[in-house]
This record gives sequence, structure tokens and C-alpha cells, in this order.
Amino acid sequence: MDNLLDNIEEILLMGPGPSCVHDTVYEALSRKTLGHLDPYFIRIMDAIKHDLRTLLNTGNTLTIPMSGTGSSGMEACFVNLIEKDDPVLILINGVFGMRMQDVAQRLGARVDTLEFEWGTPVIASEVQAKLVDTSYKIVAVVHAETSTGVKNPVQEIGALLKNSETIYLVDAVTSLGGIEIAMDAWGVDALYSGTQKCLSCPPGLAPLSFSEKAVSALESRKNKVPNWYLDLSMIIKYWKGATRAYHHTAPINMHYGLYQALQLIMEEGPDNVYHRHRVCHEELVQGLESLGLSMLVAPGDRLPMLNSVRIPEGVDEAAVRGTLLNEYKIEIGAGLGPLAGKIWRIGLMGHTARQENVSRLLTALKAILF
Amino acid sequence: MDNLLDNIEEILLMGPGPSCVHDTVYEALSRKTLGHLDPYFIRIMDAIKHDLRTLLNTGNTLTIPMSGTGSSGMEACFVNLIEKDDPVLILINGVFGMRMQDVAQRLGARVDTLEFEWGTPVIASEVQAKLVDTSYKIVAVVHAETSTGVKNPVQEIGALLKNSETIYLVDAVTSLGGIEIAMDAWGVDALYSGTQKCLSCPPGLAPLSFSEKAVSALESRKNKVPNWYLDLSMIIKYWKGATRAYHHTAPINMHYGLYQALQLIMEEGPDNVYHRHRVCHEELVQGLESLGLSMLVAPGDRLPMLNSVRIPEGVDEAAVRGTLLNEYKIEIGAGLGPLAGKIWRIGLMGHTARQENVSRLLTALKAILF
Repeated sequence: MDNLLDNIEEILLMGPGPSCVHDTVYEALSRKTLGHLDPYFIRIMDAIKHDLRTLLNTGNTLTIPMSGTGSSGMEACFVNLIEKDDPVLILINGVFGMRMQDVAQRLGARVDTLEFEWGTPVIASEVQAKLVDTSYKIVAVVHAETSTGVKNPVQEIGALLKNSETIYLVDAVTSLGGIEIAMDAWGVDALYSGTQKCLSCPPGLAPLSFSEKAVSALESRKNKVPNWYLDLSMIIKYWKGATRAYHHTAPINMHYGLYQALQLIMEEGPDNVYHRHRVCHEELVQGLESLGLSMLVAPGDRLPMLNSVRIPEGVDEAAVRGTLLNEYKIEIGAGLGPLAGKIWRIGLMGHTARQENVSRLLTALKAILF
Repeated sequence: MDNLLDNIEEILLMGPGPSCVHDTVYEALSRKTLGHLDPYFIRIMDAIKHDLRTLLNTGNTLTIPMSGTGSSGMEACFVNLIEKDDPVLILINGVFGMRMQDVAQRLGARVDTLEFEWGTPVIASEVQAKLVDTSYKIVAVVHAETSTGVKNPVQEIGALLKNSETIYLVDAVTSLGGIEIAMDAWGVDALYSGTQKCLSCPPGLAPLSFSEKAVSALESRKNKVPNWYLDLSMIIKYWKGATRAYHHTAPINMHYGLYQALQLIMEEGPDNVYHRHRVCHEELVQGLESLGLSMLVAPGDRLPMLNSVRIPEGVDEAAVRGTLLNEYKIEIGAGLGPLAGKIWRIGLMGHTARQENVSRLLTALKAILF
């Protein structure tokens, strides 16, 4: 029988993630597996923690990758911090804010939401007004809303919560590695991300960071975390200290991939990486507009790594994506929820954010649409 | 700065997992990442489902890998099946039975346990007696108790539960791919495993299978599964049907690895693979005994893939493991819990189960101990 792996074609991944992967990251994935308690593997773990802290601009000791994809990071943040009936405020302007609401409700939180039009950002003054009413244990927001391409004002919201007891929780799945994150300066207490966006490592791990305030909320829980697999009070004993306690077997080779992906960002320099994302984004927008297409999101609110473009009248959007994939070997994303059929989502994440990729997509789109 | 990945040494992994990985599985991990909704990736997903069903001897439609390591499979089985105050019986004779108890209690189940001496198997007649008292929603047992090297009588316990409404839940983390599993014939309703044991793929995925009885328990829940990330009622929509609905981004490259690991088992033939495990196990036991060492578990109850050997009087067990790792590049496992300092755990899992590996370990042990 044929081995399906032999016929995997290289696709230019310009959707909402996974993104393109550097050859050295692929090589990293195929290094020899070590035991999860091997002292050499622990050195690799320590290097990953160090680089994640650098990229997040945080001194948080509890800064580690969780053994699951980005959504496991969301689950981990909420399940470790929420106890039944805890009041939680979730700011929603897209799919991932809605997912936060669903996760928190399943865990028994009393969830309030503030909703904003999809394609527009969260408005900090409305958050401020809401905070007058209720004292929340957690306020949560998505930094880079992957479903719309909007950047939310994480720093401004953080300023509202400083000196409060509220835990500030941020989804950085799509932002980490593509735009600046200053976790400590912005007062973010709990943050999760994923590897398959701007870190340009295949999916499988969810970087997470907890401030001392978040750790102390975890430590003062009345009940055990209702999720053994994601219980940070146990996991941290595997990631910290001289003697490492086995919790679960870490995904060794995925950690090799993440290590290498972080090395590449550190070698290029985070600021240079962010600059590359911005430049590619500007070229993409200019190119799309010169084809007569228009962007969903207003210029000041756009993410560089996730570009939502309106589908022109009368165009069969799925057929265009099919042609791009099958004939041009380029993947772009469809719209989600109320934006299904209305937008395409073009990713410029991590290693994908190269000018030659922008040109290749624009050339293909021009040929298909005109 | 040095790249730590450049100095990873190849270790002969003879501990309790991860096990040695075949070169073609390493190559698989480094194939080009596809999108999680790419039709070609969906073909690979379908092939994985097919091979897992073959290996489990089941017709269960819901047979998929979860996006986490083996313990996420345990978490997934319990969290999808348990609602608050459900009566659950857990059969315990090692660490992983205890872990099941902890997981189920955190989820609000009313947990009864039957405990058996570590190093001995669960006794089916005692289970039968216990079942007279109470009608349990779930009865759970570990097939291959990795902490002791004991094989539990999964088939016999299944016979006790046939024609009952009880859901029979089995941990097959260490058994899958090393000894026969006949999920349907044995009446197993819910089963989870891990990739890093006898499947010989690096850790990162947890194969899981639900019978129709288990699926209908899931479908008739009063409340949503209190874990968004592992909610099978949503995940199945990504793994089944003509149109695949996005839930979370699957760990693409880990799936390539699992696909290839399953291919290798199918090419060799599962029965031949099991035979190879048995032969290596017998040679190992014979060799250890000829060195004067003794096994923890009685002959009829031993697992071929996990061999618990008593540490001789006066031996510094950690020093021996250190020398094996540093000088001989062989990893073996320490004892856990009450068996810490009392046994070594020698794995013969998947690709590790080769006669040359048995010889290499025996030679090294002889040199170190005598």
C-alpha cells in the first residue's frame, strides 16, 4: 500500500495557522527522543522557559509550554484560576472571545460579557464603565482575534486593572512572536499562546505564563483543580527546581521544535521579527487594495499577521480557496461564524511573513479573480 | 551560542516510555506541515482511525487520537463520561489506578475503589463480589500497570460487566501495540492509550476509543462536558463525516508520526509484533535471573513490555541508573511510590523490543553490578 506521507506536498500556509515551518525546525522535530527526566532534556526545557520569558517580557517563573495545542492553554488558564461561582468578565469581539466564555461557563464561573462588533476592537472606556459595577476575579481578552484580524488594546485594559485584585488573562495565541507583548509592564497575570502561529512551529504546545498574583490564586484554591492533566500546581514541579517530579510524559520532540523556533526568533531579534511582519502586512494590504479588494478592519486596528479581506460580490469564495490550494499550493483561511462567506483570512505568521510569499499570493489571486 | 539540539545523544530508551523510535517515524515527524482542514491531511486522519481500529479490534466509529499525551486520554475518558455524583469503581494496583481515582474525584464522581497489592493483579472474583453491592456507571482498570509491570485481567473483568449498563473503561497506555487488545470481544466501552510506549512514536497523542454505549452516555449528558478542549461531542465533528468542523488545531506533525508508527506495526503484523515483545521479555528475564536478580511480578502476571526487577541489597540504585545513562547510553526507569528504591523498571516497548537491546542492557548491567 502507498504510504500517504510520501505524497505530502509543500503548501504555502497563509491561513490562520498553522504557518510555514523553517527547515531547521523540521530537523529539530526529528532529533532522537530523550527520556522526559533525562538531565539533557531538562536543559532544553530550561532554555525554552528562558526564551519564552524573553519573548513575553516577563520575569514570571511559571512560564512553560503546556502539552496540548493553543486551546489547551486557554483551558489551562481558566481551569487553574476558576472556582465555582467566581465572577469573570470576558471581552468578546470574535470566535476566540466566545470560546473563552464557553470554557469559563463550563467550569462553573459566573460569566459576564461585554460584546463588541466583530471586526472592531474592544473599547477600553466601556470596560472601565463595566468595572465600576462588579469586582471580577478575572477579566479576559484576546490580544489578536484570529477570527477577525483585530488587535485589542491589551495594554490599555491592563492599565484599568492595575492595583486591583483582578487577574488579567490574555489570549496571545496569534500575537506571540508577531507583535510586541510586554506581559509585566502591561500588568498581564495569565497568558497562553500556541506554537503554530507566529512562532512557526507545528501545532502541539501551548506556551503559558502566570504572574505571582495568578500563582497565588492557584495556591489559595479551596478545591483541587478539576483537571488533573492541566493542573499547574503539579506540572510546575516537573518544570522547576533541582529535582524534577514526573507528572505526565512531556511531548519531547515537540519541545525540540519549540526550542528551535525560539532560537530562530532570538537570532533574528524579536524587534526585527515584528518589523518583518509589519512590512509584509503593509505590502499585502497595498497589493490587495490595488486589486480592488478591501480590508474588513480599520487601519489602526489591524493585526499584521492576520489579514481579513472582504470577498468581492459574486465570487465563489470556496472555489477561490480551492484553486489557490490545488493549483497554486497556497492555503488561505475562510471566515468563521457571522463572517463565513464574507471574508478570507490571510495569515502572515512567523516564517510565512516573507515578501516573496506576499508576491506569490497576490499574483495567484490576481490570476484567479481577473 | 551553542544549539543544544546539536548535542542530543542517541539513548537506548529502556525505561517506562518514551521508547525507541524508528528512523522512518522521525522522518515522518519532519514532513511538511499541512493545514488541519487540508483534504490531504484528512486522508491521513482517516488512515490513522482505520489502523487504530484494527489494532484495537474494534468497529467503534469514535476511535481517534486526542491532542495530548497519554494522561490527556485518561482525562478525556473520565471528563466526557462523568457527571457530578456518578458512582464509579476504580480497581487499583499501582500509580495509574491511583491517578484514575484522582482524576475521577476531581470531576465530582462518587468514587469507590478496590485495592490490590502492588505487583499483583486485580482479582476478578473480588470485583464480582463488589458489583453485587452497587450499580456503577463506570468500572475502570489499567490493562498494563506501568508502575509495577503487572497485567490485569481485562477480559475477565469485562465478562462480569457484559449485559450490564456499566461503562467499562480501560487504560491501555502501555499495552497498546505490545499485547493483544480485543476491545469489542472483551466488552470494553472506553479506552485510551499513548503513543510513546509500544507504538514507538514520540509522546504527544493519546489514542482513544468509545463504544456506542459510551457515545450514548456522552450524548445523554445533562450538562456540557466541563472541559472544552477534550469535549468529544465537538471533537468528533472534526474527525468524522464529509465536512470537517474546526475545533482546535490538531498537532499535524505528531499525526504524521503516529501514522507511520501504525504503518510499521501493520507491515510487521500485530501478532508478530506481540511475539517479538514476548521473546525479548523471556530473554531479558532469563538474563536478569542468571545475573542473580529477581523479578517483582509472578511469571503468569508479567507484562512483556515492562519488567520490574528487584534492586539487590546494598546497591545504590540511582548510581546504577546514572552509570547506565552516562556511560552506556541506556535509560531504565526507577520505581514509583512505595516501589521507589525497591525496583528498576525495564521497558521493552515497541521498537525497543529487539534482542540486541536486551543483550546490550544485560552486558552493561553485568559490568556495573559485578
